Amino acid sequence: MNTTAFAYVRTGRATDALRPVRITRGYTIHAEGSVLIEFGHTRVLCTASVEEKVPGHKKGSGEGWVTAEYGMLPRATHTRGDREAARGKQSGRTQEIQRLIGRSLRAVFDLKKLGERTIHLDCDVLQADGGTRTASITGAFVAAQDAVAWLMATGKLQESPILDRVAAISVGLKAGTALLDLDYPEDSACDTDMNVVMTGAGNFVEVQGTAEGVAFTRLEMDRMLALAEKGIAQLVGLQKQAHDEPKTLTFSA
Amino acid sequence: MNTTAFAYVRTGRATDALRPVRITRGYTIHAEGSVLIEFGHTRVLCTASVEEKVPGHKKGSGEGWVTAEYGMLPRATHTRGDREAARGKQSGRTQEIQRLIGRSLRAVFDLKKLGERTIHLDCDVLQADGGTRTASITGAFVAAQDAVAWLMATGKLQESPILDRVAAISVGLKAGTALLDLDYPEDSACDTDMNVVMTGAGNFVEVQGTAEGVAFTRLEMDRMLALAEKGIAQLVGLQKQAHDEPKTLTFSA
Amino acid sequence: MNTTAFAYVRTGRATDALRPVRITRGYTIHAEGSVLIEFGHTRVLCTASVEEKVPGHKKGSGEGWVTAEYGMLPRATHTRGDREAARGKQSGRTQEIQRLIGRSLRAVFDLKKLGERTIHLDCDVLQADGGTRTASITGAFVAAQDAVAWLMATGKLQESPILDRVAAISVGLKAGTALLDLDYPEDSACDTDMNVVMTGAGNFVEVQGTAEGVAFTRLEMDRMLALAEKGIAQLVGLQKQAHDEPKTLTFSA
Amino acid sequence: MNTTAFAYVRTGRATDALRPVRITRGYTIHAEGSVLIEFGHTRVLCTASVEEKVPGHKKGSGEGWVTAEYGMLPRATHTRGDREAARGKQSGRTQEIQRLIGRSLRAVFDLKKLGERTIHLDCDVLQADGGTRTASITGAFVAAQDAVAWLMATGKLQESPILDRVAAISVGLKAGTALLDLDYPEDSACDTDMNVVMTGAGNFVEVQGTAEGVAFTRLEMDRMLALAEKGIAQLVGLQKQAHDEPKTLTFSA
Amino acid sequence: MNTTAFAYVRTGRATDALRPVRITRGYTIHAEGSVLIEFGHTRVLCTASVEEKVPGHKKGSGEGWVTAEYGMLPRATHTRGDREAARGKQSGRTQEIQRLIGRSLRAVFDLKKLGERTIHLDCDVLQADGGTRTASITGAFVAAQDAVAWLMATGKLQESPILDRVAAISVGLKAGTALLDLDYPEDSACDTDMNVVMTGAGNFVEVQGTAEGVAFTRLEMDRMLALAEKGIAQLVGLQKQAHDEPKTLTFSA
Amino acid sequence: MNTTAFAYVRTGRATDALRPVRITRGYTIHAEGSVLIEFGHTRVLCTASVEEKVPGHKKGSGEGWVTAEYGMLPRATHTRGDREAARGKQSGRTQEIQRLIGRSLRAVFDLKKLGERTIHLDCDVLQADGGTRTASITGAFVAAQDAVAWLMATGKLQESPILDRVAAISVGLKAGTALLDLDYPEDSACDTDMNVVMTGAGNFVEVQGTAEGVAFTRLEMDRMLALAEKGIAQLVGLQKQAHDEPKTLTFSA
Repeated sequence: MNTTAFAYVRTGRATDALRPVRITRGYTIHAEGSVLIEFGHTRVLCTASVEEKVPGHKKGSGEGWVTAEYGMLPRATHTRGDREAARGKQSGRTQEIQRLIGRSLRAVFDLKKLGERTIHLDCDVLQADGGTRTASITGAFVAAQDAVAWLMATGKLQESPILDRVAAISVGLKAGTALLDLDYPEDSACDTDMNVVMTGAGNFVEVQGTAEGVAFTRLEMDRMLALAEKGIAQLVGLQKQAHDEPKTLTFSA
Repeated sequence: MNTTAFAYVRTGRATDALRPVRITRGYTIHAEGSVLIEFGHTRVLCTASVEEKVPGHKKGSGEGWVTAEYGMLPRATHTRGDREAARGKQSGRTQEIQRLIGRSLRAVFDLKKLGERTIHLDCDVLQADGGTRTASITGAFVAAQDAVAWLMATGKLQESPILDRVAAISVGLKAGTALLDLDYPEDSACDTDMNVVMTGAGNFVEVQGTAEGVAFTRLEMDRMLALAEKGIAQLVGLQKQAHDEPKTLTFSA
Repeated sequence: MNTTAFAYVRTGRATDALRPVRITRGYTIHAEGSVLIEFGHTRVLCTASVEEKVPGHKKGSGEGWVTAEYGMLPRATHTRGDREAARGKQSGRTQEIQRLIGRSLRAVFDLKKLGERTIHLDCDVLQADGGTRTASITGAFVAAQDAVAWLMATGKLQESPILDRVAAISVGLKAGTALLDLDYPEDSACDTDMNVVMTGAGNFVEVQGTAEGVAFTRLEMDRMLALAEKGIAQLVGLQKQAHDEPKTLTFSA
Repeated sequence: MNTTAFAYVRTGRATDALRPVRITRGYTIHAEGSVLIEFGHTRVLCTASVEEKVPGHKKGSGEGWVTAEYGMLPRATHTRGDREAARGKQSGRTQEIQRLIGRSLRAVFDLKKLGERTIHLDCDVLQADGGTRTASITGAFVAAQDAVAWLMATGKLQESPILDRVAAISVGLKAGTALLDLDYPEDSACDTDMNVVMTGAGNFVEVQGTAEGVAFTRLEMDRMLALAEKGIAQLVGLQKQAHDEPKTLTFSA
Repeated sequence: MNTTAFAYVRTGRATDALRPVRITRGYTIHAEGSVLIEFGHTRVLCTASVEEKVPGHKKGSGEGWVTAEYGMLPRATHTRGDREAARGKQSGRTQEIQRLIGRSLRAVFDLKKLGERTIHLDCDVLQADGGTRTASITGAFVAAQDAVAWLMATGKLQESPILDRVAAISVGLKAGTALLDLDYPEDSACDTDMNVVMTGAGNFVEVQGTAEGVAFTRLEMDRMLALAEKGIAQLVGLQKQAHDEPKTLTFSA
Repeated sequence: MNTTAFAYVRTGRATDALRPVRITRGYTIHAEGSVLIEFGHTRVLCTASVEEKVPGHKKGSGEGWVTAEYGMLPRATHTRGDREAARGKQSGRTQEIQRLIGRSLRAVFDLKKLGERTIHLDCDVLQADGGTRTASITGAFVAAQDAVAWLMATGKLQESPILDRVAAISVGLKAGTALLDLDYPEDSACDTDMNVVMTGAGNFVEVQGTAEGVAFTRLEMDRMLALAEKGIAQLVGLQKQAHDEPKTLTFSA
């Protein structure tokens, strides 16, 4: 019932290909880590800010905290959206995404080693074309890494609290075909949308799959997970390169 | 790294066993559907209310809408929590859960057949002991079904817009052991928590897995999904019985 | 002017009769006191939670505090109402009621003897059919009593801070006839609605009478107060029984 | 228990005496009715504004609406209070008072005769010394009367929708002595505080009595009501004079 | 382009004349400083309240703080406006004005000499006819001066922290004619509206000019500033008189 | 008093020199106009969005509307600021700035010629180093111009509603020296800060001068205005070039 006779044919990109990815470190000057990450037309500015205190639930614990906030500029999208600050509250979607980014980053941090300080990750979407939450997680990790490097360079930390890399990608099903890294038109049209977050070691941190139209089978799920594993391995490789090499790094599948 | 030598041993219940489940239809008198669902000590009151209008984005579309709200009474939990109405806003967690319930229910509704009306599902947790969101989805479906029956009995609908059943369960990993239907102490202590929503036909509507501590492997994921499939099949059977039979129905694995 | 020639005739119940009242102690498991109280179809869950701190205005005073919050589930009523948490604020009506419950309970507490701790009373209406505020006060007292019993059993208090019982009932005027314990249809149709709160000793804690239609005379007021005194004496007797006897107690006039 | 051997002796005023009352009509120039009312040091500016539309629940009913808002300037009191507009919400006390004023005024209005328009009563306390809600009701009536006169003078109404006068006063119990028209120090110290709203015909619109310390007896209640009846008769007389005579009118008991 | 052939002729007042100004000290009894200031029909109640603590950013600095809040009663204007407390937030205009008043007053205060305490200036418009912000600044200074006098009289301060007087006036351009102290009809109709704040010594604290219709030339600006200098000198003289002389002082140009 | 013996010496830039200015058109792809403007390290993304409806106060008027919103990314500054969307309201400063931008742009628009549509200008600060509001106005004009060009190219407008250019710059006084285009350290340290908005024709739209420390003299004001006139003429020239020429344009004084 939930597959169709003729499969979807993607134009201009293989079904298992990422869009061109670009990582620019040091994009703004004030933050301890500042990264512009691009997944095709999607552009997210990820900054990492170090604050020498922790939220209430961590006070006196000897542990630090890593947290995230997410926002979209009103005209990052096709049609102008409301400014959340003007409306006076963040949407459920915004809160869901920033909670996901925070959990994903904490999964690769040893909060004890971080000490009683907070790393704030701000992911602001300058231009949106699908995959803003996965680009945010992937870019936020690079920014967090730069903030940790700054903590070590300034002598505030002797040992890195980072346990592994973390990156994320979306996968989907369209007319029974599994697709990697959906852009906005694909995301709107597909039957299932799944966001996967994995570590550098290849284990899962988060899997969030939603059938928008038709429920998906176990077999389809397996196919989507395989695509995600492949895409994330490429993103992790890119994060490594971006760290080792010059400030801007472009990747094309 | 993310498995340990000695596995977790569950006391009083098999690792693949649901807690006792109880479904009471007609729990309150005003709503078109009103169901108290219990998963062990977790008790959620799910009401379905029919409103003869639709939200703005559906006006004039000829289609209906199914939406959900979720709340927890302040002392549903061990320690009293803030009342969200008094605090002046719903938490991110609350919004995430109510969006999940709404999407899950819409997955089994033909909105065209529903006609331009809304079914509001209110899931209010009277007592919490883990699994409130999965109990909510499972109970909300029964309430929605009663509301549809009311629409048909009163002649407002000729044909049911319900395409299939939908139910949900949590699974988790503790010390490498996969567990079905976590209660609160298990949920707090486990390494991974996954919520799975499936149709009566056995397909996936939502999969949301989160590594709280250690990232999980593909193999572990497969084991969790297998448990979920088993548990949901039992819940769907129970929904069927609850519908066919008397007002209160108790199930014990 | 404000009496009419033919008086109102109540069907199925004497004008001076309470609806069937039922008090169930220990309704939920987490709270120190947890009572479901029913006045006919009106059902309110009253929990009492002990917190070992006091609000700012009591800090360092050596005195405790007793406070209440009130809520109504969206579909407790005939037509679904807005969820206050979603709307982002409590209505004036809600605030008025919770202030009334708090004052009524404090009237029978010796705050010095309570010590620097707070008893939070949460009154949540599961089903409404008139008299939710009076049922809340009457049930909250039983829950508060159980919380005090818990404080004494756990050795946190040596002496009870409770000075007397407290209970409440509504009375009204319809076509010149005084009625005890209005249900929702009566409440909507009556000319005057009065809520009376009294102690076990038979003194007044609160009297709130409102002419909805026609102003009422002194004589009518006297008649309403006499009915209230009678009804409250019955409720106080029932509270006593509920305390002495088994967990659920049903009363029928 | 709730009376004491020696009674309270009021200094400078008989226990059954009002404070000097002053009513100034036409206090500001823009509003259809604008009255400064003073009860001793308490000074409230009451304006009545006519708006040619009604709130949603009255649209198309052919009936009008009368509603009130209440506010206190931050330094109307001994100690500066928060500005509610800056805090972003009205307190429960504010809402309770403005609901009371609105109900009291509607009690003497024939909303059908008013036609589909609203009279907004704004009661803003410039200086507070007890009795701000009773002064507000008493002054708001005079402002409403002026607004109705304006509606008739401009030909928008042929017949007055006002059915009777309405006024309010506080009474209290201190050490067993009943007191009329409490000022702030008396209000803070008394055992019971009761606000009474009555029509010109001498019937009750609202009675709100609260035992702050000790519960009050039926006898004490009767004594308080008798005082209130006397005080309100004087206020109604004053309202009549204020209407018939010059713009400012001073009354001294 | 931005001048017209025939100039505007003001009726009843010279183009360089202030409206009658009246300053009443001691207008209410509780505040340390309480001034009613009137610029023609514009009437603002300015109170100064002393609080023995400072906001967070001044804690431990040894310095004090001077801050202002501004409000308008709903029917201070021709048409009733929303009550900001009911709407739940202050408008941008309100915030802009209260920030301006605060800055203007701080410009003549030596915060070190004030010591770690705050002077809160509340400017509430009872009746509006243009110039409410300039009347607020001019009146708030007199209230602040009275609060400082109270601090010195009660021995809390030995030396005045006030460095100079401060006052404000509006000027505008209508059909090429510069006008001093615009009333509401002039303000609505003019091409440019400028608010000027100056010290007693004749220097500028704030200049805020806005072209509502046509942009203004440098020459026009010079003419407006000359008018403002003249008007402010008169206001400062009046402030001096009000301080030296009786409680109410009327000035007529 | 408000000048000092030795004047301020600016390092690296003449006192009458702008910082390097860069204007990049077409910075993002979705908006009808999208401009990144840089004043030294200050970087603001200005988008212009066309909406085919107008706010309530313009409905049916045949006129259009031009409005602005302003925001700062949390880590645009040295220290991370609160995210306004998370805090739930815009600060007074934010509202003041966005009102200023809106008024400035409307000053050069013929709203009748625009027709019943709205141009929304969103100015989001990616990196801040002083002068964000003046950069916003200068960049927003270029974005608005591109949006108008789009309206004409798509045949929605026959004639441009733009009457003139508009640009803005800050000037200040430090130790008696007038400075053009303050960066953040200068802005924090200077005695007076003035923002000037002018048209291409050289007339004033807004002048907002604030003495932060010492009040300024008329002579100092004249010197600041002369600097502003010079700087704005350069910015207007640059806007013209940016419009005529390629997508990115760099200017260096």
